[in-house]
Amino acid sequence: MSTIKEMNKEEAYDKALELVNNSEKCLLGTIDENGYPNIKAMFNAKNNGMNEIWFSTNTSSIRTQQVKNNEQSCVYFVDMENFIGVLLIGKIIATRDKDLREMLWEDGCERFYPQGVDDPDYSVLHFKAERGNIYHSMNKASFEIK
Amino acid sequence: MSTIKEMNKEEAYDKALELVNNSEKCLLGTIDENGYPNIKAMFNAKNNGMNEIWFSTNTSSIRTQQVKNNEQSCVYFVDMENFIGVLLIGKIIATRDKDLREMLWEDGCERFYPQGVDDPDYSVLHFKAERGNIYHSMNKASFEIK
Repeated sequence: MSTIKEMNKEEAYDKALELVNNSEKCLLGTIDENGYPNIKAMFNAKNNGMNEIWFSTNTSSIRTQQVKNNEQSCVYFVDMENFIGVLLIGKIIATRDKDLREMLWEDGCERFYPQGVDDPDYSVLHFKAERGNIYHSMNKASFEIK
Repeated sequence: MSTIKEMNKEEAYDKALELVNNSEKCLLGTIDENGYPNIKAMFNAKNNGMNEIWFSTNTSSIRTQQVKNNEQSCVYFVDMENFIGVLLIGKIIATRDKDLREMLWEDGCERFYPQGVDDPDYSVLHFKAERGNIYHSMNKASFEIK
């Protein structure tokens, strides 16, 4: 018998959205060429609620190659101090869409992409969530992404 | 052209081991029933260098079911402040081995397993690493686990 309790769905969704909106960093889960899950901390993310998340990445990166082979992915937001974790599960693509590159560009990005916003090694990862769950202390809930 | 540099292998291994040994929390990557990667923050881990990591978990947990279906997994250690991430890739099994249950038991575990060390809902996840990589600021390296 598990001691973990189900949270109210609406309250769970609101709490999850709050963590996603307030997190500067998160963790991206992808599948590698051998079928193993991989995790990487990602910074500089932008999000549209819990529906979509964008990351900047190197076109040449291992992550870009992985998502071209397998779109199945997840993004995890965690507050280690308060024992809150939000897992979003969905699909991710790598794109060179210029509007997205401009949207994500910030001062300091030239450290990673010396040629600027049109650097051929500058790509965007675009994640679309399908479902999610939240774990908060001894409470949990799962939800569909609307 | 990527601006990320390769680290010295030996230095990379030592730095990775230091982070693993000093982390109280880490992130477990598993594959769910639909083939998507999932991530969950895990606490109370014990480790044998970077070779093996053990977690306590509920026998009834989603994680336990996932690893029974697919042993392919990863464990990620991250220092968000100093931009260090260590990814260990390998296989994980769920076990009720009594010695392992006793090894992982600590004061406070009864909050999760009210019947104590023999609670049928108390299981151990045993991860064995096969290879790893470290990312530190703009430097990276990959290594086999000896």
